[in-house]
Amino acid sequence: MKQNKYDDAAFFDKYAAMARSVEGLSAAGEWPAFQAMLPPLAGKYVLDLGCGYGWHCFYAQAQGAAAVTGVDISAKMLARAQQAPGAERISWRQAAMEDYHPESGAFDVVLSSLAFHYVADWPALCRKVVQALKPGGSFVFSVEHPVFTAAGTQAWHCDDEGKPLHWPVDHYFSTGRRETCFLGESVVKYHRTLTDWLAPLFALQLHVNGLSEPQPSTHLLATVPGMQDELRRPMMLIISVSKPA
Amino acid sequence: MKQNKYDDAAFFDKYAAMARSVEGLSAAGEWPAFQAMLPPLAGKYVLDLGCGYGWHCFYAQAQGAAAVTGVDISAKMLARAQQAPGAERISWRQAAMEDYHPESGAFDVVLSSLAFHYVADWPALCRKVVQALKPGGSFVFSVEHPVFTAAGTQAWHCDDEGKPLHWPVDHYFSTGRRETCFLGESVVKYHRTLTDWLAPLFALQLHVNGLSEPQPSTHLLATVPGMQDELRRPMMLIISVSKPA
Repeated sequence: MKQNKYDDAAFFDKYAAMARSVEGLSAAGEWPAFQAMLPPLAGKYVLDLGCGYGWHCFYAQAQGAAAVTGVDISAKMLARAQQAPGAERISWRQAAMEDYHPESGAFDVVLSSLAFHYVADWPALCRKVVQALKPGGSFVFSVEHPVFTAAGTQAWHCDDEGKPLHWPVDHYFSTGRRETCFLGESVVKYHRTLTDWLAPLFALQLHVNGLSEPQPSTHLLATVPGMQDELRRPMMLIISVSKPA
Repeated sequence: MKQNKYDDAAFFDKYAAMARSVEGLSAAGEWPAFQAMLPPLAGKYVLDLGCGYGWHCFYAQAQGAAAVTGVDISAKMLARAQQAPGAERISWRQAAMEDYHPESGAFDVVLSSLAFHYVADWPALCRKVVQALKPGGSFVFSVEHPVFTAAGTQAWHCDDEGKPLHWPVDHYFSTGRRETCFLGESVVKYHRTLTDWLAPLFALQLHVNGLSEPQPSTHLLATVPGMQDELRRPMMLIISVSKPA
């Protein structure tokens, strides 16, 4: 069963109020690191898996991509994406990533932002991506960091006054389903070790070009309350690989 | 200042009593994972940085390596290594890794086990290794995991009765020196993020062949008290890369 939390009205409304939902990539702390790991997109066929509001699709379009396809399970997310200027030049597909079957060798670049931790079968998705990529094509994605997902609570261990003492890691090698709280709602995610995230990529003979644990910019650190705590534990992992030419 | 803790008599005696010091690789929980990531060693010129008792040197020799060099800062460790059968066929060098300067292109394989977290300048060491490698050569090493080194205490967060509640992560992006306690002695280690461990390897155009966070074997889990806790957080990281041919 694929989770479609973003079509839950209460959850969607809360998500819509997040800074990154209102302001887009500029409010996403990890975006500079993600952007730096993308290949040039001009003239490229680009696929965004779990595109949400389509911020990355619009970015690819602005970079001069030849064609952009955005896939998301949520009708609400896609409806909002389709309201933005230029949306008619992007192909939007409402489908779970698991049910979307791209044409073989159709894409130069497959990207995904913070969506794959909702997927139960990661190796199967990797196989699909590799099949969808042209030789020499790139696959760049961000996920929640294993340190962030391991214990499952996704909350600081605090003292009696609510002050964060440290970030708890537990059950690291007990991979799989985690029921956690995001925006006050129960959400199912899948915890994987770093080894698990990388193993299918190595098995598929992809070339690992980069790995990054993004840190907030000095601007965000200076202006957003609590952002300093983001230096205390990694929250995201970005991986860039390519298919042999 | 390079740390030479293993020539401290009290520390050395405690280290000598550890299972892995008495029994060698078979008692090292990470060895099967490490072994699986090594290239074939027969006929190869092999360098072991921070070789300690030389267990990996003897393994390389047993695999039919053409020549094996073991480098360690500790005279006491090397003295013990030299007592083992076959030791006379291995080249032992007493030096800090930072002060050892291998001949350019002299080695097919450079390996290191749990030594690099004592090194302050990791990118410089990577450059040295790459220079020492022949084209197509392999570099395989294990270090303490960033999750293990981040907070610096290297101890579980426990309840009032001393029962481990979870593993604390803190100061993850504040990389550098950590003073910690190992075998009841104060030891200086260097914490690096996963990104930091990998960045020089990507910068040097090395090909990342594998990454592993080893788990204890079912045998160790069943026979060693407390070993089940090793499934709760990663302790080690093993990385295998190769120099372009």
